Amino acid sequence: MKDSQEYKNKKKFFDSVITLYGRNVVVEVLEDMNVEIHRLHMSESNQIDGAIKKINALAKTRGIEILIHDKKSLSRISKNSKQDQGVAIDIVTKTYKSADDIKDMKNYKLIALDGIQNPQNLGMIIRSCAAGFIDGIILPKKSSAKISPLVMKASAGTLFKLPIYYCNSLEDVFDGLDADIYTLSSHAQNSIYDIKLSKKSIFVLGNESEGVSKKVNELCTKSISIPMQRGVESLNVAVTASLIAFIKF
Amino acid sequence: MKDSQEYKNKKKFFDSVITLYGRNVVVEVLEDMNVEIHRLHMSESNQIDGAIKKINALAKTRGIEILIHDKKSLSRISKNSKQDQGVAIDIVTKTYKSADDIKDMKNYKLIALDGIQNPQNLGMIIRSCAAGFIDGIILPKKSSAKISPLVMKASAGTLFKLPIYYCNSLEDVFDGLDADIYTLSSHAQNSIYDIKLSKKSIFVLGNESEGVSKKVNELCTKSISIPMQRGVESLNVAVTASLIAFIKF
Repeated sequence: MKDSQEYKNKKKFFDSVITLYGRNVVVEVLEDMNVEIHRLHMSESNQIDGAIKKINALAKTRGIEILIHDKKSLSRISKNSKQDQGVAIDIVTKTYKSADDIKDMKNYKLIALDGIQNPQNLGMIIRSCAAGFIDGIILPKKSSAKISPLVMKASAGTLFKLPIYYCNSLEDVFDGLDADIYTLSSHAQNSIYDIKLSKKSIFVLGNESEGVSKKVNELCTKSISIPMQRGVESLNVAVTASLIAFIKF
Repeated sequence: MKDSQEYKNKKKFFDSVITLYGRNVVVEVLEDMNVEIHRLHMSESNQIDGAIKKINALAKTRGIEILIHDKKSLSRISKNSKQDQGVAIDIVTKTYKSADDIKDMKNYKLIALDGIQNPQNLGMIIRSCAAGFIDGIILPKKSSAKISPLVMKASAGTLFKLPIYYCNSLEDVFDGLDADIYTLSSHAQNSIYDIKLSKKSIFVLGNESEGVSKKVNELCTKSISIPMQRGVESLNVAVTASLIAFIKF
């Protein structure tokens, strides 16, 4: 079955599903009619209190399947037994796509994240890019913070507004891609105030302490600087993403 | 003595002193030779471990006065008994000035903060403004987060690089001031991409949930928008400050 169309479709579907957890988050998601929900998971050990009653009622209204698990199985689904509070929810994210799709796109300005581990930074980056002039974020599954309730909170309701192109590693995506791939460097000749974008541009932002990894750096084709005053050496990564999203090139 | 020059000088001095606490922060401050230190405070209950030995040695090298207090007195100095770890330090901040000084300035682009309570946001705002084209931040003592170790951490070493103009309230500063005072509004006719700055400009940023307070809003003279895509309604306040600091008007 591995190569069949059915397998590919299933894989595509499950790749687009993300699981969130925690009672407030689940209520928020259930109340947002723009969010497509696959299934709701509850622990059999949950006390039927106000929050659980509300979750059950919302799920019933929307006709969403509820699966009951023992506590251990629920932990395996949420992958966060400390914070799941006995509930998890599978969301079908139409904006969550494979980075393979980028090859076929003709015009884009994307931000690629190389090792952003801080969920608040990831949420803020999503929020600013959704609001600004960015077509999507390339997010490697392995090296990045998971899409979690903390990310959702920091994204302030924008988590499902912007395409997120998932991949295993940025190297896979960049290899052979016909695009200008920018890194930021204080030594770069051109600044963000004087570059001219080509039709296909990707800006790579690295981990705050480590920067862009060596392998990814080697695949970048251009570099730009953000001029800074008073000897300041760097900006918060979410701020950098925001400047790329909003400064008009 | 209240009106004497001596009193005024003392008041000015103590207004420029901020007190930080916690062992890592105190070590970091003692190691930064650009930071002028007034006095070091230690609790008599401190165990003489590695960190305390290091702090004592650094203070001795720099010739800084050490005052020993009982635990309660130290808490009154740090104002944070839970996190002071038995040490506090008074810093003389040359960049920490009275907002009264603004009246006599002839050219400026300032950011005024109205009720920013989140220390991470405050630290990020300081970092971006220090790096960008902003001449200082107006910070009302009453309604803002205190300059604390959390603010220091989020500022990433930029806390003492940018002038911070303290005041009791923004109303006091704005009243009768000959400057363009901007608020951000999604309804504004002009966007940040098409305004022309006058010689004296102040941008007011409000609390993330409440926005700019009514009284301050009434003293603002102009309003601008940041155009947003995909129906996103707002940006993180530190991101907004960063855009004002870096987008060239």
